Amino acid sequence: MRIELTPAAARAALSGVRDDDLEEADLMDAFARLVWSVVVEPGDGVAGRVVEEWGAAEALRRLIAGHPLQTNGIDASDLAKGLSRWKPRGDATAVRAATESARRTGARLVLPDDPGWPGRLADLGVHAPFVLWARGDVALVADEMPTVAIVGARAATAYGEHVAAELAAELASAGVTIVSGAAYGIDGVAHRSALHVGGRTVALLAGGVDRPYPSGHAALIDATARSGAVLAETPCGTPPTKWRFLARNRLIAALADTTVIVEAGVRSGSLNTAAHAAALGRPLGAVPGAVTSASSAGCHRVIRDFDGSLITGAADVRELLGLTDAPTLSFDETRTDEMTRVLDAMSTRQSRSPDEIARRSGIEPQEVRGLIALAELSGQVLERADGWRRALSTR
Amino acid sequence: MRIELTPAAARAALSGVRDDDLEEADLMDAFARLVWSVVVEPGDGVAGRVVEEWGAAEALRRLIAGHPLQTNGIDASDLAKGLSRWKPRGDATAVRAATESARRTGARLVLPDDPGWPGRLADLGVHAPFVLWARGDVALVADEMPTVAIVGARAATAYGEHVAAELAAELASAGVTIVSGAAYGIDGVAHRSALHVGGRTVALLAGGVDRPYPSGHAALIDATARSGAVLAETPCGTPPTKWRFLARNRLIAALADTTVIVEAGVRSGSLNTAAHAAALGRPLGAVPGAVTSASSAGCHRVIRDFDGSLITGAADVRELLGLTDAPTLSFDETRTDEMTRVLDAMSTRQSRSPDEIARRSGIEPQEVRGLIALAELSGQVLERADGWRRALSTR
Repeated sequence: MRIELTPAAARAALSGVRDDDLEEADLMDAFARLVWSVVVEPGDGVAGRVVEEWGAAEALRRLIAGHPLQTNGIDASDLAKGLSRWKPRGDATAVRAATESARRTGARLVLPDDPGWPGRLADLGVHAPFVLWARGDVALVADEMPTVAIVGARAATAYGEHVAAELAAELASAGVTIVSGAAYGIDGVAHRSALHVGGRTVALLAGGVDRPYPSGHAALIDATARSGAVLAETPCGTPPTKWRFLARNRLIAALADTTVIVEAGVRSGSLNTAAHAAALGRPLGAVPGAVTSASSAGCHRVIRDFDGSLITGAADVRELLGLTDAPTLSFDETRTDEMTRVLDAMSTRQSRSPDEIARRSGIEPQEVRGLIALAELSGQVLERADGWRRALSTR
Repeated sequence: MRIELTPAAARAALSGVRDDDLEEADLMDAFARLVWSVVVEPGDGVAGRVVEEWGAAEALRRLIAGHPLQTNGIDASDLAKGLSRWKPRGDATAVRAATESARRTGARLVLPDDPGWPGRLADLGVHAPFVLWARGDVALVADEMPTVAIVGARAATAYGEHVAAELAAELASAGVTIVSGAAYGIDGVAHRSALHVGGRTVALLAGGVDRPYPSGHAALIDATARSGAVLAETPCGTPPTKWRFLARNRLIAALADTTVIVEAGVRSGSLNTAAHAAALGRPLGAVPGAVTSASSAGCHRVIRDFDGSLITGAADVRELLGLTDAPTLSFDETRTDEMTRVLDAMSTRQSRSPDEIARRSGIEPQEVRGLIALAELSGQVLERADGWRRALSTR
C-alpha cells in the first residue's frame, strides 16, 4: 500500500471533483472512501463491513499500516482473503489516475452524507457503494423522486422496444425518473424515450463514467449526462467486466422504487436485476409477451416464479408505485345493454343483493348473478358482506 | 302444467334414452329430473333448492298439483317468481319433443346417480344441472380422469390458435381430457387438436346436443361425439341463447380440474368461464401474449386480477394439475463456466455457505453470491436455513 493519508493528499485528490471545503474529519473520510472505491471491487461485503466497523479513514489507515482489522461478523479467513485482494490495488497512482480522469470528464464525487446521496442505497447494507461518481444531476434519484427501472434484454425485439419506449415516455412524462443500464436493446430505448419527452433519466454504468459503454451508445450516454445523470460506483478509468455488470445491476434495483423487466431471455442479465429487486423487497414487474418468443421467457419466469406483477402498461407501473389509488383502465368496453341495466341498478354507496338488483333492473336474478360475476371480473363491482356495490372508479 | 306423472309416461319418455330398467322410485325421479330440465333454464338456483328439499318427483308433483312448495332458504317472493317462470313451460308436448329429438340424435340421458355422472358437478351446489344429455362417452369426464378446460376467444389470432393446438395436443397425448365449448377460435382448435392426436375431448354445448352450434362446427362436433363426448344440460331442441352460453360456461369450469384461457379480449365470454373456475376454487391459468394484442388483454387480466397462473406451455398446466412433482424445464441453458463451477461446488444433499462454495469453486465469495442469486432465479439452487443446496431436478 503506497498511499499517503494526509489532509494535503486528500485535498489534492478531491480538488475538482468536489465543490465544498470539508472539515478535516470529513475530508479524510471522503478521501478514504474514494480510495476504498479504487481498492475494492463493487459490492465487496467484507470491505463494506470493515468500513462500517472502523470507519472508512481508520480502516484505511490500519490497512496501510498493516494493523489488525478484525471485525465482528467477518471470519479471520475471509478478512485475510480480503486484505490480499485489496492490498495489491492500494496504489496512489491508481487513485490519481481515477481522479484525473474524473476531472477531465467533469465527473463529481458523491458521498453518503451529501444531500443528493440516494437514501435507497442503504437497503444494500454492507454491499452499498462507498461513493458514487456522477456526470449530471444525481438529485434525479433523490429520495423524494419516484423512480422506475426499465431494463431488459440487449437482444430485444421490435415488440419489446416498442413497449419499453411507451412505458418510459408515459412514466417520464408523469415525472417518474427512468433508471436503466444504457445497454443496447431495452435499456437504451428506455433512456432515449425518456429524453425524447423531456423527462428524467439516469444511467448506471458498470465501468467508469468516463468510459461510455457500449461505445455505440456514447452519444446517448452523453445526452443522458447532460439532461439527466450518468452514475457509477467504479472509479473513472475502470473497464466494465461481467462481475461489474452483475454488481451494477444491484445498484439499478436499489435506486428504483420498482423494477420492470420488458423483455428477457432466460439467460438475460436483467433477470439478475430482477433477483436483486426481489431480494430488496422492492415491487417487481415484467411485461408478458408471446410464449413462443424466447425474448419473453425470462419475463414469464419473473411473473411465475418471482411473483412479479404482470405489466401491461404505464398505469400498471403507476399502481405498483402507489401513484394511483384506483385502476385507470376504462371498463366501458365491457358494457352490454343488460350490463348497463345491472350497473344502473347498483349503487356505489350502498350494497344490494342480487335479487334487489334484479328487481330494480327487471332482469332475472340468475342473469343478474352472471352479469355481476362478469362485472366483478372487470373490477366494476365489489362484493360486500351485505351484497354488491359498484366500484367507485370506472374511469 | 299438463304433464302426467305416471310410471307409464315415465317409461315412454325414457325409452330409447336410457338402457336400464329402473325401479319405480328411480324411474319417477329420472322422469321428474328430465321434466325439470325442460321446465327451467340452466342454473336456476331456486329450482335447484326446491328439488334438493323435496326431491325431483315430489317437487314436480306439487308443482303440477299447485300444492305448496315452500323451501328453506328461498323467499316466498322468489318462489312465486319461480313458479310463474316454470309453470308455462310444464307441457307434455315439450317433454315429448325433447326425448324424440334425443332418440333421433342417439343422445343418452345421464343422471346424478349414474356411475358416469361427473362428481365434479357437485361443487355447483343448487346450480348443478338436473341431468346431462350425452352424445358419446360421458366417462371421459368421470372423476378419475384428469381434465383441463382450454377455452378462449372466438376471434383468436394465429398465435392463440397455435398455442391452443400445442397445449391440447400435448395434454391430450398425456391422457388428459380436453374440455371446451366447441366455439370458433380457441375452443374449436382445442377439440380438433385433441382429436388429431387420438386424445380425449369433451364439448359442452349451450343448446341441445342435437343442434350442433356453431353450424360451421357441425362436423367437428359430430367427430367429437364419435371419439369423445358432446354434453349439454339443456334438452334436445333447445336453441343456444346468450344466457345459456353463460350458464354452459359454469359447466365447463366445473367439469375441469383446471381452466386455461388461451386468448381472450376484455369482453370475451371465456372470462366468464374464468370467473366460474375462480368461484369454484379451481386452479385457473392464462396464456400471456403481447400487451399490444387486444386478444390477450383478458388473459392478462386473469393473471393480474384473478391470480391466474401464467401458462407458457403444457408443463405449466401439468404442474397446476399436480401431475408433475418437479419443473420439467431445462436449466442447462443458464450455465456459464463460472456457474458450472459454482454448481459443481454445491450438493443436493447438504447445504453449504457461499463462503464454503467459494472455497470449493475457487471463485470469489461475492461472485459466488451473485451466481447463486442468478441460479436461484432459474430454480437451480435452494436456500436453506444453513446455506444453499442444489435443486434436485435440473432435468
